[in-house]
Amino acid sequence: MAKYQQLTDEIQQQIEAGIWPPGTKLPSLRQQVQQQGVSLMTVMHAYEVLESQGWIVSRPQSGYYVAPRALQTAPAQVALSEQVDINNFVFDVLQAIRDPGILPFGSAFPDPELFPQRQLMRSLTNVSHQLTPLDALSNLPPGNAALRQMLAQRYARQGITLSPDEIVITNGALEALNLSLQAVTEPGDYVVIEQPTFYGALQAIERLKLKALAVPSDAQQGIDMQQLEETLQRWPVKACWLMTTLQNPLGVTLSPARKAQLVALLARYQVPLIEDDVYAELWAGDEPPHPAKYWDRQGNVLHCGSFSKCLVAGFRVGWVAAGQHAQRIQRLQLMSTLSTSAPMQLALADFLATRRYDTHLKKLRQTLAQRKAWVHQALRGSLPRGASVEDLPGGYFLWVRLPQGYDTTLLYQQALQQGISIAPGRLFSAGEEFTHCFRINAAWAWDTRAAAAIETLGRLIADQRTD
Amino acid sequence: MAKYQQLTDEIQQQIEAGIWPPGTKLPSLRQQVQQQGVSLMTVMHAYEVLESQGWIVSRPQSGYYVAPRALQTAPAQVALSEQVDINNFVFDVLQAIRDPGILPFGSAFPDPELFPQRQLMRSLTNVSHQLTPLDALSNLPPGNAALRQMLAQRYARQGITLSPDEIVITNGALEALNLSLQAVTEPGDYVVIEQPTFYGALQAIERLKLKALAVPSDAQQGIDMQQLEETLQRWPVKACWLMTTLQNPLGVTLSPARKAQLVALLARYQVPLIEDDVYAELWAGDEPPHPAKYWDRQGNVLHCGSFSKCLVAGFRVGWVAAGQHAQRIQRLQLMSTLSTSAPMQLALADFLATRRYDTHLKKLRQTLAQRKAWVHQALRGSLPRGASVEDLPGGYFLWVRLPQGYDTTLLYQQALQQGISIAPGRLFSAGEEFTHCFRINAAWAWDTRAAAAIETLGRLIADQRTD
Repeated sequence: MAKYQQLTDEIQQQIEAGIWPPGTKLPSLRQQVQQQGVSLMTVMHAYEVLESQGWIVSRPQSGYYVAPRALQTAPAQVALSEQVDINNFVFDVLQAIRDPGILPFGSAFPDPELFPQRQLMRSLTNVSHQLTPLDALSNLPPGNAALRQMLAQRYARQGITLSPDEIVITNGALEALNLSLQAVTEPGDYVVIEQPTFYGALQAIERLKLKALAVPSDAQQGIDMQQLEETLQRWPVKACWLMTTLQNPLGVTLSPARKAQLVALLARYQVPLIEDDVYAELWAGDEPPHPAKYWDRQGNVLHCGSFSKCLVAGFRVGWVAAGQHAQRIQRLQLMSTLSTSAPMQLALADFLATRRYDTHLKKLRQTLAQRKAWVHQALRGSLPRGASVEDLPGGYFLWVRLPQGYDTTLLYQQALQQGISIAPGRLFSAGEEFTHCFRINAAWAWDTRAAAAIETLGRLIADQRTD
Repeated sequence: MAKYQQLTDEIQQQIEAGIWPPGTKLPSLRQQVQQQGVSLMTVMHAYEVLESQGWIVSRPQSGYYVAPRALQTAPAQVALSEQVDINNFVFDVLQAIRDPGILPFGSAFPDPELFPQRQLMRSLTNVSHQLTPLDALSNLPPGNAALRQMLAQRYARQGITLSPDEIVITNGALEALNLSLQAVTEPGDYVVIEQPTFYGALQAIERLKLKALAVPSDAQQGIDMQQLEETLQRWPVKACWLMTTLQNPLGVTLSPARKAQLVALLARYQVPLIEDDVYAELWAGDEPPHPAKYWDRQGNVLHCGSFSKCLVAGFRVGWVAAGQHAQRIQRLQLMSTLSTSAPMQLALADFLATRRYDTHLKKLRQTLAQRKAWVHQALRGSLPRGASVEDLPGGYFLWVRLPQGYDTTLLYQQALQQGISIAPGRLFSAGEEFTHCFRINAAWAWDTRAAAAIETLGRLIADQRTD
């Protein structure tokens, strides 16, 4: 065996044994030469091989460090195939929700019956009467000028001053998030996500060949700021993708102080924040919470929003207020989908001009709160001892934590056979941390069918009891 | 200087000097050890560095080869920044076309006044009366079932039997092409494109961190089959992206025999063909030409189509008949834009059901042929001696070749100041091969303004005369 290969194996075994924990600085090249009695070339080659296999990372002007935990236990190949399995799983879950015979507690979208169908269709009719052939051109990226202006006005009402030129209209928030991530990273870069996280973040990271650094979030305070700072200290992080308001799946909203702290922290490390704020309009209380974007002074927060969760399903219109990154995002969009459909942009601009939006949102928030309370109450009667339900103000998700040992991936399969979908915890992490949890979408009409479904879930869970 | 660095520099200089032409096998590691009197480690390290810089490629069980011409003259970094410049240029060209004061001879889209505006708007109105909240779900990928069925019927009329399940509806053909490329490649892979090529292919390749292998196409026969085969022999090609009918910018359509040959050749090398067929409906003659997909027996041709060039601008609806790759493309779409807008899919399905499409297309082809003839005639009177115009049957592009020495990038800038856009040759290649050429979109109404613009172009060209 070549000397460099011996050294490679040795260091790899030391990392596996925990001798060099994730984030530790490895001995320098010179130190290794002295300690191991081998040539500098041998050490360099060994470090290169370890880096190419994802065991270690080099940081310019600093040295070599052990790679984060997620990459530590398996070489890149295995990690990749695990990811593909999650994708298959997400895909299966999404496909199942399409079946109108399935009760979609697993969906991420609210009941579209809650949307102002008649007014939206009136706007679409208006557009069909007014659309001119030139509208295809004038709605190219960054998108419809009137729509961007009305969005800028909505930001202004929240005390956020930004130019309509900073806003890019996209094919839903998912395109906004994906383009944002692409705009600030290169393949191989590290990206901070939270854990649990929206599975779209995991998929985007895999698709763009990035590496995820997961920082825990909890339902009390949201993302762990101290761990976030440690992660920023240790790794060359190129982006941070978080939900700061009504986080999916936990439902947690960061306090204003924590949002300000988050922006300041990321500014200090020059790390762009991709702020996924698709549930922003579904707040509870007297005042809408500010997004983290409110505290952004450097144009380094990319605030992604959407109409899909609060106004209309299927139009596929979202946006990003991208600060200094707006130009780059436009270009990426021109290369990948060219633009958002002109009639859809115009229909939304027409609807927003009617000023019915806020009236609709107020009613929507009330209905969702009522429905969530019903589902929560029914769950309380159906869950085993030791289970808990996170029910935070706003939104329409309930996060159910069963006692350890319960298997919600299995529960998902069993429930599906009974015509009920749930979003199992497995979706929300690259690992196995949440396989005893699941998310319930409580936005659906509360009727005997829904009540029976919660009972069925309770029975299936009870049957899993292992004691 | 370290020994491996000396060897790296030496081999790099040899490649630059043409001692090892692109595609040549380099001396093996053992041979280098003997020839250079250095250690195996030193040679390995040098080869690794050369590979990481794009000078050479390794081929499993075979050895190291000099990288293709495109990568030969510059290390990866420089190639990248050149690409970014092209992107800026493409972006500028696209932005200029948006200005309604500019005569858009540089546009890739036909005059939208030629589209059946009234019937399309009637379809949009129908949709606005019939759309239900559930339509958002039922139009998720692979897309609207009725639309996919009607597309499959149109394929069937051409003798192409494919299941509607093979078809994925996308946000325009650009998304179809990008998802197709992504579905069959990984970053770093080699992709064959033609030269000149649609600039979107260059952008997609850069965005996905792929490497382009350009094979020449000419206006007589299209892509050079012999060079294509040599390229497939030499490089581990993972995809081939071509326009087989009414190629942009040349206007050439491969003969049926050549299309069959192309499919057979790529099948032999197991290379998927991404067939960009967005001008398919703008054929001339008695019968529409078959796409290469017609000869596909392995489901390895991804045929990408669109309504944007022949029916409606700004709806952003295209599709791919993706054969064995359809499932993977659906998943990539679910991760990146989620889906195509439901009302837009429904409006097109409604329009296609009226059976007005073929009547419209027949008239459109006639009008375009007439307009192209007028522009060509005017150009003949305005161009300098030695210039030539490719005017092939069908479509609406004219490809103008000025004598060597003329600079169409400069011409583009000068014409823009006169309120005229053209598509300069620089857009259609990563290199400088076509800087004396430009593309003219002849789909616009032929009036005094257009005639004056052609005269102005002629004058600007005459002013460039250097003799």
